[in-house]
Order: sequence, then C-alpha cells, then structure tokens
Amino acid sequence: MGAEEAVFTPDRAALVARLKALLPAHCLLLDDEELRPYECDGLTAYRALPLAVCLPETEDQVRGVLRVCHQLAVPVVARGAGTGLSGGAMPHAQGVVLSLARLNRILRIDPLARQAVVQPGVRNLAVSEAAVPHGLYYAPDPSSQIACTLGGNVAENSGGVHCLKYGLTVHNVLGLRVVTGEGEVFEIGSAAPDAPGYDLLALLIGSEGMLAVVTEVTVKLVPKPELARVVMASFDDVGKAGDAVAAIIAAGIIPAGLEMMDKPATAAVEPFVRAGYDLEAEAILLCEADGTPEEVAEEIDRVGAVLAACGARGLRVSGSEAERQLFWAGRKAAFPAVGRITPDYYCMDGTIPRKRLAEMLKAIAALEKKYRLRCANVFHAGDGNLHPLIMYDSAVAGEWERAEAFGAEILELSVALGGSITGEHGVGVEKINQMCVQYRTPELETFHRLKAAFDEAGLLNPGKAVPSLHRCAEYGRLHVHGGALRFPELERF
Amino acid sequence: MGAEEAVFTPDRAALVARLKALLPAHCLLLDDEELRPYECDGLTAYRALPLAVCLPETEDQVRGVLRVCHQLAVPVVARGAGTGLSGGAMPHAQGVVLSLARLNRILRIDPLARQAVVQPGVRNLAVSEAAVPHGLYYAPDPSSQIACTLGGNVAENSGGVHCLKYGLTVHNVLGLRVVTGEGEVFEIGSAAPDAPGYDLLALLIGSEGMLAVVTEVTVKLVPKPELARVVMASFDDVGKAGDAVAAIIAAGIIPAGLEMMDKPATAAVEPFVRAGYDLEAEAILLCEADGTPEEVAEEIDRVGAVLAACGARGLRVSGSEAERQLFWAGRKAAFPAVGRITPDYYCMDGTIPRKRLAEMLKAIAALEKKYRLRCANVFHAGDGNLHPLIMYDSAVAGEWERAEAFGAEILELSVALGGSITGEHGVGVEKINQMCVQYRTPELETFHRLKAAFDEAGLLNPGKAVPSLHRCAEYGRLHVHGGALRFPELERF
Repeated sequence: MGAEEAVFTPDRAALVARLKALLPAHCLLLDDEELRPYECDGLTAYRALPLAVCLPETEDQVRGVLRVCHQLAVPVVARGAGTGLSGGAMPHAQGVVLSLARLNRILRIDPLARQAVVQPGVRNLAVSEAAVPHGLYYAPDPSSQIACTLGGNVAENSGGVHCLKYGLTVHNVLGLRVVTGEGEVFEIGSAAPDAPGYDLLALLIGSEGMLAVVTEVTVKLVPKPELARVVMASFDDVGKAGDAVAAIIAAGIIPAGLEMMDKPATAAVEPFVRAGYDLEAEAILLCEADGTPEEVAEEIDRVGAVLAACGARGLRVSGSEAERQLFWAGRKAAFPAVGRITPDYYCMDGTIPRKRLAEMLKAIAALEKKYRLRCANVFHAGDGNLHPLIMYDSAVAGEWERAEAFGAEILELSVALGGSITGEHGVGVEKINQMCVQYRTPELETFHRLKAAFDEAGLLNPGKAVPSLHRCAEYGRLHVHGGALRFPELERF
Repeated sequence: MGAEEAVFTPDRAALVARLKALLPAHCLLLDDEELRPYECDGLTAYRALPLAVCLPETEDQVRGVLRVCHQLAVPVVARGAGTGLSGGAMPHAQGVVLSLARLNRILRIDPLARQAVVQPGVRNLAVSEAAVPHGLYYAPDPSSQIACTLGGNVAENSGGVHCLKYGLTVHNVLGLRVVTGEGEVFEIGSAAPDAPGYDLLALLIGSEGMLAVVTEVTVKLVPKPELARVVMASFDDVGKAGDAVAAIIAAGIIPAGLEMMDKPATAAVEPFVRAGYDLEAEAILLCEADGTPEEVAEEIDRVGAVLAACGARGLRVSGSEAERQLFWAGRKAAFPAVGRITPDYYCMDGTIPRKRLAEMLKAIAALEKKYRLRCANVFHAGDGNLHPLIMYDSAVAGEWERAEAFGAEILELSVALGGSITGEHGVGVEKINQMCVQYRTPELETFHRLKAAFDEAGLLNPGKAVPSLHRCAEYGRLHVHGGALRFPELERF
C-alpha cells in the first residue's frame, strides 16, 4: 500500500446495473449533464466527471452503495455540500460520488445535556438555528456555514473565526456513526470525556473521507454568550500587528476571535462593505471578547492595554451589536470583495507560529514580485492560520500555474517556519505534494498502514490527502537541491 | 489478529545476552529481588514478574531495546512511574519492562509560545514547577501528580480535578516523538491547531503503550490564574446534589473544578483533614472559580444562585487561599482517608451523563447490599466521572472477588446509563472484560486492525486495553442471559 498510485478499471455497465437495483431512480444520476455539477468542489481548478452520483436517502442505501462499490472495486468519493477548498470532494474519474446531501435531518436536540444528533447532510448553520430556542448554538463557524454540511465539517475538521476560543470540529463532536468501505456500521465516542480504546473519534475527524463514511454526528452545543464586543486596532507596520497578536495570547487572553487583514485586503473590502476600516493602516486587527457584560468589559480593557503597548495607531470598540456586525462584515466579505477586483483568486491555508506572522508577510511580499501576482492577506491571526488570497486571471496563459506555484511556496514556507500546511481546509488534492514536505517516510508509511487498517482495498477517496511514497520521491526530485529544500525567501530573515 | 490471546515463548538467555550487549550494567535489572518492585503498578491485585527491566538513558537505547525485542519476539511493557490504577504497566511474564524513568529531562520551555518539550520520565508536577518563573503551568493534574510522569499521562490520557475546564492530556499535548515496536522514530503534531493527515496525535494519546513508546512530549502551558475561590455546598439529598451539578453546567458555567463527595466519603475524610465539611449532609459539592478577581466574583455569584435554587442546605465560600487549599485538602486526601478506615479499597473509574448521577448513587447503594461491602463515593462530578471506593479486606477469603465483581457491575451500569467504562484511569487489565460491554464486534475489530497497523507482531503491551474477540465471546457466555445484558439494579429506575 502507498508505494504507488492505484489504478482502477471498473466495468461501468455492471456498476450501473447494480446501483439501479439498489436505489430509486431519483437517487441516481448517470447522464453527463446531471453529473456536471459534481465535477468539482470549491477548488474549481481541479475537475473530473464521475461514473455516477448516488444520492442515498437512508443509511441502508449508503451501506448498499459502499458494498456494491467494494465488490466491483469502484472508488467512492463522499461529498457534503461541495464547498471544500482543497478538492477533497473532487470526483474520481473511475468512481462514484456518494452525496450525503439527502441525509439532512436533525434527529434530536437535548438541551440539558447540550447535545444534538444530526445526519451528515445537515447544514452547519441549521444546527445553530435549531438550537436557538434553548439559548444554545454549535460553535465551529466556517465562513461557508450557510451552505456547508456537518459531514463535510467532520471530513475536513473545519474551523472558523471563533475556533481560537471554541475549538475546531474535533473539539465539538462527541460521537460518530460511520459506515466502512465494506458497508459495516460502527459507532464511536460517547458523552463521557474519555472513551476507552484507541481514539477513533479524533482519527476519523479530518480524515477527508479516506477511512469511512459518516452517517450520524453527535455534536456539543454551547450557550450563546450574553454579549460580544469587538476591538478594531490599526497599525502602521505589519510586524507590530503580528507582535500584538502574540502579545495578546501571551497575556493569557483567549479572545473569541482574533483576525488580521493587511492593506491590500482592507483596500479591497472597504469600498464594498464600508466597515469603517482605516485605509492608511498597513494592517488591522479585529479582536472579539464574549461572555457576561462584566467579563467582556474587563477583557476589552486588557486587550486595549496590550494593543496600545504594542503601538496600535488607532483603537475603536464596537458600541452596539450593529457596529460589531459591521466590523465583522468586512472580514467575512473579504473573499468576495477580493473577487470583485480580480478575475480569479486562489485562497491558501497554511498555519505558522504566531510570533512568525511578520516574517511570513515579508516573505509573501517577496513572492508577489517573484511570481508577478498580487496577494491580499486575511489571517485567523490568533491561531496563526493564514489565508493569503493570490489574485490571478485564468484567461491569461501561465497565470494559474504561477498562482499554484506561489501557493505551494507559501505552504512549504509554513513548514519551514515550524507550522503546518493546513489550518482548516484539509489537504485534498490541493496540498498533496506539500505533504511530502510536512512529513518524512516513517510518518507517511504509518498513514498508509492506518488507511489500510480501515480500507484495505483503497477505494475510499483514492489519491487524496496522503501522497504515495512514489509521488513524494518524484516531487522530491523536482524540488530538492543538494539534499535540502530551499527557501530563498526565508534566507533573508 | 485479535481472534485469540497470543502466546509468547522467548529464549531468556538469548534476550539477556542481547540486552547486556546493548545497555550499561546499571540500566538492566535481571535478578528477582531487583525485578520485584516492578511486578505491578497502582493496581496491586494483578502482579507478574518480567524477564528483565530495562532503564534506558537515551532514545537510542530505547530504540535498541525495541529492536532486540522485535527480533526475538519478546513482549515489551512501557512504564512511567507505575502509579496507574488499571494495570496498564503490569509486566508480561514472558516480556521486558521498558522503564522511561531515566529519560527525565525538561528539554526546553518557550514562555512566548507557552510550550514545553519534555522527556517522558519527567514528573507531571515538575513541568508546572519549571514554568513558575514564567507565570505558567501545565493544566492536567492527576492526584498522583507528585509522582506520575508525562509519558504515563500520555499513555493513559490522564485528567485531574481541573480537566473539566482545562481538558484531559489529549487537549494539552501538542506533539509527540515516538519509537515504534520495530525501533523506528516518528514525530507527530505541530504548534498549528490542525495538523494535516490522520490525527495520529490523538490516536497515540491514551493508547496505553499498545501502539508506540513515547520519547518526547511537547505540552501546552497555560497562565496561572490570578485568583481562585471555592464554593462548598451541602445537600440533604444526593439527588439534589447531582441535579445541581447538571444545573451549573446547563447555566453555561464551566467551573475550574466541580467535585462531589457523599456522606461515607466526608465521614472518612473529616477526622483526618478537618476541612470543615458538613458531616450531616448526604453530599457536598466543591465548585472552583478561577480567573481575574472580577471574573471570579461574578462566577461565584452565579454558582451560588444556582446552588441555592437547587436546594443547597449550606453554602460557604473560601475567604482566603489557605481556606481554599483546606477545602480541597479533604477531597485530595479522600483516597488515603478511606485507606485509614478499611484494610483495602478498590477505586473504580466510570463516567456517566451528569444528569444520571443520582440514579447511579442509588444503584451503588443497592450493590453495597448485594455484595455486602461498603462504598464511599468521590466524583469528578462536572465530567460525570465517578470514583467509587469499594472497601474490602484482602485477608478475608472472597472479599477481593466480591469487590472486583462489584466494580465490574458499576462499569457495566455506566455503559447502560449512556456513559463509559473509563474517565481517566484507562482500561489496562482491570477493565478489559468491560470493553466487551462497551463495544460490539465491528468496533473491536477496528481496534485490532489499528493495532496491527502499528504493531503487526503484537509485542507492545499484549493482553491490555483491547480484548480479543475470543475473550469477549467467553465473557458474553458468562454474562449474557437471553440475548441481553441484565442490569437488575437499573430496572428499578
């Protein structure tokens, strides 16, 4: 396993006959024009048309599809809402897309235990909406939360603006019911803080559809804070802003959100949203405090003192819920705002130690010159999670290739700075080469053995997330010079 | 794998010759009287003398021992301080004990990143002590923290009084360096919130020495709170106390600690510690608030209001740090205090949903009559984690067997109430039969496949934590009547 890329040559006619016997007609898409909407997810640069799309309505049908595909050696790519940004749900050209979109019921909400049990096709925001009558909500809030589903969130271990304080998906899921590649059901996790046996729950979360298919998710609900307020600080130097982020955390404050935008990002956003951002500033920080009014007042005071000591040139505190929403509106609209000023953009997702934010921003500035492409920077700064938005025009020959190479360098630089190639978007197809930079052979071999323990036939989402050793050897031959990876951008610091 | 118990028949002379060639004389124990102190861990009811005890001083020596044992097919049981309560470090009679006690250096502390890198033999409390100059500490605080080591904490995913707010070991470890059963080193985890690839870090934490041997641990450090105060509440009914625990959490308060003791426990403790506990109360709760003085004052007010509304008959708030320590002293001394009034006691460790605490206490009272043994109850109530202390006399024929059966019923009742057979002590040898109650065949098969992915030869801590399917079939034949597990104590509720 894992030494080379697998090749699949299924008999499509036999597959279609078996799927037709299993699923009602409205649960099976076979024609090209029906398959077309499924050819990619949010990473639109990579596309493939699958042999079929299955839209099961019951767990038994999910099991049936997996059993058929296992018997016929057909790859299966599970899919939620298709909002993922790393191509984790990109179809396999010789495989089936297994959409969980119709498993979309909230099965129960237990306000006393503060838990909800939902099917994988339930939208992230729908969970919080259903919990409103109990004063509760589901904390992880990816910016796609209107559309993205809990199943997809589990597959990618999604985060969001508030994950600094409230954690990623892995910190907010208590149990899973899953179907294996052979169609067997198992359940893992419990309401108890520590489940006996190996921690399969954490292992399955973020496994990008490579180990099993989720059919039920038990999530933690948390009480809606009484109050939230945002401090907006502007800086005349990105280094000072980066240092302020590290200083806030070092002061023992865990804000509900701590975000940073650089000048190109605020310049793109402000005409679109009119959030009142300081357009002269090289960087702005948004820092949210939530809790009881007393807690919020106290935290805002402490944050303000740290920001002032770090040289903030301007500080504003939201005076009302409407103003708080406005401050955030700019941040939340950053991606579409950048979309207005460039034909295409490529959103990266690396993570670095907070104290190295300033270094990374300088390196990105150097890479803009090297690749002749502009980049706006939006960071979940408290986590050290970067979302550089590389602007390009897919109609201009070579620009996408330059954008992709630019993004790859940012990821590899993240590793060199002591960080990671993902924050919350997963590896998918997008970052699979960078896995060769993040890990060495022993770790990759362990991943492949683990994969085989769940999916010996290698049919679940093949070619994603974990590269073959062969692929890494090829990538290494391209990228390694004189035995070491080179980061000319980094050498300057 | 996993179908039957493995049998090992190593050649001791060949093993000793290889180990002597590998390790300096002071790092290898071979004589009976030297081996004796290693024959059990904190679960003293189970004992076995190993073939040898290795005390390596370097990671290279750890690798060497594992390679030798792999080549000669000798079981290896890793051991920290031996304070574990589930027999996870009990030797294998045909195996080697691999003590990590001499890998006991704190390698570095980074106060800005709030991280420490330590070897596995470093004591839990030593990490916090080393972080004092920076105003930081390591949050998980098992009651054995003076003696227990980080390596053992990782193996058992240890908790403590403060894990309700600050998390278990899995929430406070950022990275691991480990050696596989074949002697290969790999590293996992990073400073980033989300590492790409499968979550091996969470998988390894709590894996009870079954997957790999830890040689380096990177932990999160957190700022020492400015202030902590404890509310002590007494109740004339255990049901009301249990409901108050659920009400505090339902009110959105996450105390720094939330502990419960029943009347037999306070009666044992008070003469010993003189903490000022209300001896007329059926149960007392200890609820700690920590943070800034403003946060603490506000939380104490809210907790007090909830406790009063739940019918607390008395409320006291610690007025000084000395009084806070005194309130806790009784709780922390509960185990030795019970040890003063009974020749032996057996500490159980199940977890149940908080709202079912009162039911469990009534069931335990019924079991005391059934087994003719007394039980004092000390709970990490906020987590629903129970530590019933079953009192017995090992000198009286049949009492240990009754105590063990009593404990097993509590664990199986925990599962029936929607909980788990562990809170923080692990499965080890103690709870291995109850794993057959907690999980069904598909989950157990997955555990065995996972184990084989890391340790195909099955040499790392064999016979612990995950039962063979054969063992579960045997246990089922003993315990299942008419196709269903029976819980006569539960039927009354």
